[in-house]
Amino acid sequence: MFDILFKNICVVNPEVDCPVIANAYVGVRDGKIAYLSQTETQDIAARVIDGTDKALIPGLVNTHTHAAMSVLRGYADDHNLQDWLHNYVFPAEAKLDEECVYVGTQLAIAEMIRTGTVSITDMYMYIPAVAKAAYETGIYANITNAALVFDRDGYRMEKDNSYIQMEQLRRDWHNIDNGRIKLDSGIHAEYTSFERVWRDYADYAKQYGLNMQLHLSETKFEHDSCIQKYGKTPARVLCDAGVFDTRTTAAHCVWLTLEDMDILRDKGVTVAHNPVSNLKLASGIARVSDMLSRGVNVALGTDGVCSNNSHDMFEEMKLCALLQKGTTLDPKCVNACQALSLATTAGAYAQGRENSLGLIKVGFDASMAMIDLDVPQLTPVHNPLSTVVYSASGRDVCMTMVRGKVLYENGEFITIDMDKIKSRLYGYVMPRVFGIHR
Amino acid sequence: MFDILFKNICVVNPEVDCPVIANAYVGVRDGKIAYLSQTETQDIAARVIDGTDKALIPGLVNTHTHAAMSVLRGYADDHNLQDWLHNYVFPAEAKLDEECVYVGTQLAIAEMIRTGTVSITDMYMYIPAVAKAAYETGIYANITNAALVFDRDGYRMEKDNSYIQMEQLRRDWHNIDNGRIKLDSGIHAEYTSFERVWRDYADYAKQYGLNMQLHLSETKFEHDSCIQKYGKTPARVLCDAGVFDTRTTAAHCVWLTLEDMDILRDKGVTVAHNPVSNLKLASGIARVSDMLSRGVNVALGTDGVCSNNSHDMFEEMKLCALLQKGTTLDPKCVNACQALSLATTAGAYAQGRENSLGLIKVGFDASMAMIDLDVPQLTPVHNPLSTVVYSASGRDVCMTMVRGKVLYENGEFITIDMDKIKSRLYGYVMPRVFGIHR
Repeated sequence: MFDILFKNICVVNPEVDCPVIANAYVGVRDGKIAYLSQTETQDIAARVIDGTDKALIPGLVNTHTHAAMSVLRGYADDHNLQDWLHNYVFPAEAKLDEECVYVGTQLAIAEMIRTGTVSITDMYMYIPAVAKAAYETGIYANITNAALVFDRDGYRMEKDNSYIQMEQLRRDWHNIDNGRIKLDSGIHAEYTSFERVWRDYADYAKQYGLNMQLHLSETKFEHDSCIQKYGKTPARVLCDAGVFDTRTTAAHCVWLTLEDMDILRDKGVTVAHNPVSNLKLASGIARVSDMLSRGVNVALGTDGVCSNNSHDMFEEMKLCALLQKGTTLDPKCVNACQALSLATTAGAYAQGRENSLGLIKVGFDASMAMIDLDVPQLTPVHNPLSTVVYSASGRDVCMTMVRGKVLYENGEFITIDMDKIKSRLYGYVMPRVFGIHR
Repeated sequence: MFDILFKNICVVNPEVDCPVIANAYVGVRDGKIAYLSQTETQDIAARVIDGTDKALIPGLVNTHTHAAMSVLRGYADDHNLQDWLHNYVFPAEAKLDEECVYVGTQLAIAEMIRTGTVSITDMYMYIPAVAKAAYETGIYANITNAALVFDRDGYRMEKDNSYIQMEQLRRDWHNIDNGRIKLDSGIHAEYTSFERVWRDYADYAKQYGLNMQLHLSETKFEHDSCIQKYGKTPARVLCDAGVFDTRTTAAHCVWLTLEDMDILRDKGVTVAHNPVSNLKLASGIARVSDMLSRGVNVALGTDGVCSNNSHDMFEEMKLCALLQKGTTLDPKCVNACQALSLATTAGAYAQGRENSLGLIKVGFDASMAMIDLDVPQLTPVHNPLSTVVYSASGRDVCMTMVRGKVLYENGEFITIDMDKIKSRLYGYVMPRVFGIHR
């Protein structure tokens, strides 16, 4: 007896040897994939889904977000970075409160679920609100309130707001629902703190077995300034402080040296590559091809929508592959299978979920996205892997499921009350933060 | 009396001074925009459309396509260019016939209409079939069978297949439906023909007042080879042969010199920039920022889906803006308004339609796309222009209209019979070209 049985569906996995299983039967039981075969099963199922003209992919993993920034979508574009930060983003963020962050996070997760994402690595403030929002939606989330500490003299970890929120989250939410929600330790970036902070948060991660999140070498200015200040690159200086000693996700990494890449590879650090955001903020183009050839684990992220302005991971997959081809002038560079693996298995590893997430495989969580192939923009399908990576949009997703539970299907959200979110957005967040009354 | 009246809709135009007209009333009469104001009209309308939570943009112009290649979508990716061309594309194309081109063109146009495109500049073979397909769908189309002639000794224009098809199209279809379908003259590219051919097709264009289409400096190899052969760049050599003497659209232009850009500006040549295709085939990144600052008219195109693999012009708009920011390291480079103008007014100029297409403006054709803003991925809307360019996908289009006639609305195609297209695709094209029986 299955809870759900997909019949005659095209399974697409990021596996080099066997990416596509056509006309497959996929049985879901107790939140896990219990059956996967081209042979029909005789077991009955509570619900049967006809997979004709549909593809089933592993749910996508967004390894770098600031989800609650969804309330700033389109608020400021086409500005210089400093203007963007100081005159738009920071003043708006200063007005956010717990309720705003809750609403913004649910809104972002609605978009993510709509477009096939099942798991996020999120860095923001008011993280208990982020955790609550994520928990209720049914998505997986690795969450941190990354340390951002400028006051060297007044610094005491136990008095630091980041630490206080992390502690609260760790006690109340960490590993809730069998690890669906996880607390990560985090450092905002090298340039927004100092060695004492790095060591404290690295120790905190080690003490409780937490992962680590941070921004790394996003801009040339930041990368060069660190070398000037410490005589070392940001990767080297953080590695020396023990920051990479637990499983780490380093966002951006646009300006890494080849030696930096080797450090990340040796320490098992995942690069969260954010191709759209890096272009939009004019940070540059990360050398993903070099990272991959040196054995670095590279995953994908959207960053906050204020610098994107979308949470659609299909965009990141395609753009990642395109950018590497276009900048190396090698059309074979980052093929469709690699791009899909960056958005799935590489992200699952980054989050410490590699044994349950990232593949459609018996024993793994039933966390998948179904794509409707019967639309002109995906017709015909010569190669389902190519269709998923190069032709599909997150808008072609018709169902998203986490651990066997349907979160989105054909325009309907099951776990998110969009009317309630919009009512809070227009009734509370927009007036409070932007002075906009609808 | 209007045929259609949009009420309370957000009009977004690529106009620097006044891009957004909120809560507008847009009246359509006899295929033209007859009313545009924030003041409610007292005129009645045969159909009233509630524009609440909707945006209305000028229909998008795709200035470089090989539409019928839709039947090759995803057929070959991640290969070296020569391998891709000689072992996949050319052998498949050799099996295409008039029926395949008709079916492929309608399939492509279905995707385009679905995603807000109203006009195409198409270069392919069996162009009478292309014209028939385009005519029936209701889209605008500038069509050419570009000359591609290797046999210098056997060449006689009047015996050339390109010429024969062009002549047939000119007599049967040119300027049909008040110029909705137009024949362009065309030269495939500098490297696939020679001076006699360039002069003949340029003269042909001048004789009949036709526009000109061609590929220009797409790859470094092609650009450098031309300099080696003629001591001049492709732009210079074609200009000297008179090719740019009628209104010309030059596709790609990835490797233009600054002097080439000045030639194109002085001759009023439009660059059809294809950012996705140029990356995917590893041709490189066109210097659009330099072109724009030198006054070149730059428009956007998707190229054939075999090198894209999508006809969604929203992708091209966003990627164009992103790439210029990311490569110049200037986040202000190609802003949202410019990106939208590339996809609308610049394309309309390229096609010789600048007095009827590209803007929502009284007296212009009522050729527009309506976007549903009430979806999580477009919420909230701080700046409708940003929403259109940086957040929207062609999948968010809920209605596409040409000259006041609705071609697509909420999942339904009005002028295209998708069942018939799919039946011919799977019953005839796929078996004939690829040996695939469903």
